[in-house]
Amino acid sequence: MAVAAMKAFDAAGPADPVAVRHAARDGRLTGQTAGLARGHVQGNLAILPRDLAADFLRFCTLNPKPCPVIGMSEPGNPAIPALGADLDIRTDLPRYRVWRRGELIDEPTDIRSIWRDDLVAFVLGCSFSFEEALLDDGLPLRHISCNLGVPVYRTSIACAPAGPFAGPLVVSMRSFKPADAIRAVQITSRFPSVHGAPVHIGLPEAIGIRDIGRPDYGDAVEVKADELPVFWACGVTPQAVIAASRPEFAITHAPGAMLVTDLRNSRLAAL
Amino acid sequence: MAVAAMKAFDAAGPADPVAVRHAARDGRLTGQTAGLARGHVQGNLAILPRDLAADFLRFCTLNPKPCPVIGMSEPGNPAIPALGADLDIRTDLPRYRVWRRGELIDEPTDIRSIWRDDLVAFVLGCSFSFEEALLDDGLPLRHISCNLGVPVYRTSIACAPAGPFAGPLVVSMRSFKPADAIRAVQITSRFPSVHGAPVHIGLPEAIGIRDIGRPDYGDAVEVKADELPVFWACGVTPQAVIAASRPEFAITHAPGAMLVTDLRNSRLAAL
Repeated sequence: MAVAAMKAFDAAGPADPVAVRHAARDGRLTGQTAGLARGHVQGNLAILPRDLAADFLRFCTLNPKPCPVIGMSEPGNPAIPALGADLDIRTDLPRYRVWRRGELIDEPTDIRSIWRDDLVAFVLGCSFSFEEALLDDGLPLRHISCNLGVPVYRTSIACAPAGPFAGPLVVSMRSFKPADAIRAVQITSRFPSVHGAPVHIGLPEAIGIRDIGRPDYGDAVEVKADELPVFWACGVTPQAVIAASRPEFAITHAPGAMLVTDLRNSRLAAL
Repeated sequence: MAVAAMKAFDAAGPADPVAVRHAARDGRLTGQTAGLARGHVQGNLAILPRDLAADFLRFCTLNPKPCPVIGMSEPGNPAIPALGADLDIRTDLPRYRVWRRGELIDEPTDIRSIWRDDLVAFVLGCSFSFEEALLDDGLPLRHISCNLGVPVYRTSIACAPAGPFAGPLVVSMRSFKPADAIRAVQITSRFPSVHGAPVHIGLPEAIGIRDIGRPDYGDAVEVKADELPVFWACGVTPQAVIAASRPEFAITHAPGAMLVTDLRNSRLAAL
């Protein structure tokens, strides 16, 4: 049965986002989505009660580089047709995290049983999209070639606050030789809805990063002597801000288990 | 008489490139063109005999970042109508330099008497155009605010050679805080015909610059501790390459005494 199901999933192919969502929906896919449905946009998920959702949307609007909204639901409605015709946000991610007053209380693969009429789902752009563009251009990404998580750091840059949502900008770091760093600025500038251009380059201490070798999230990845660290606004920012605000109830994706959408990464290019 | 002439020049206004060229043509303007005809493209000049011109054009084609050709003449014809309807390349620059086998032999304000039927004029894009775009965006340029020449360095990067023309890439340096450096990459990427995006950022030693405080041309300009040096391919590259090749005969603009064209800087923007 498991073999037959896996076969169906393989047959549909990793290039098909609908097959990936259906595999998550059916419980055949419960882990990471990196590398699945290549070419298609994957998104971070944040689900909040309606009252908090208004403040959260304002937070995202004020902080578009870390919090680029690529889709959101009507209150209580689990569909987001702009991201996928048959998409059901309650079932179509491989795994969720359920939070109560800032405490992680469950990691289910389906949230239909806890869905509420007042919940609003936000889908935020993710660095997978621009990393694909960087790789397609031939730029090396060491965390990927070393099979590590991208290193992520809290900075001394404050986000613009909105209601209970406030906190530091969190950034991801990728290191490049200088000419490649310039190319990476050009490439990611084309993708404003998935964090866009870097926010910082070189000089980690200037944004409050004291030790580049000790990230706050993800793995430590070497910056070689002939490279510069390049920092992008990161989708961990809204997750950290939501956790710090200790909302009555919230649901997010589990780390790496993203929403796979029907949007093509190339369609996010502004130019 | 000088006062009357100056008045006529002022009356025409610095916004009019034709007035600037006529002032150079009439001998009223014999110095720098920086800040004149604001908004209009200024160009570096290189004039070579036809035989060398073929190799030089190939050199420019192979090295478009330091040598962006924005106009060239027919052999022996001093007009370049694409850059200005009544433009006469023999009279319309404030001052020229005449070279014989690599030796500077004269700095006239008019080259009609030494013009030849086999001479080909090349006009190459210059950093004035992208500096205007940087300043218009609010980015500080310290060499300008300090009234210094931009610092220029020979690098360890070899240009692609063509015939007798070979030599190192020469770069200009402007320093920025990291976020401004990223913005400068975005802005100058829009202007490929005036050197385009930087070729290097940070780590001067990686391109053979041993002491950032000792430029090979121009003035030393401070790089503050919270800044990165950003390096652009520079129009000194073809000048240095021509000088090193010791051509039988060549004419260039005198430093800072550029050709002012009718093209608008904004029209050079690729996007």
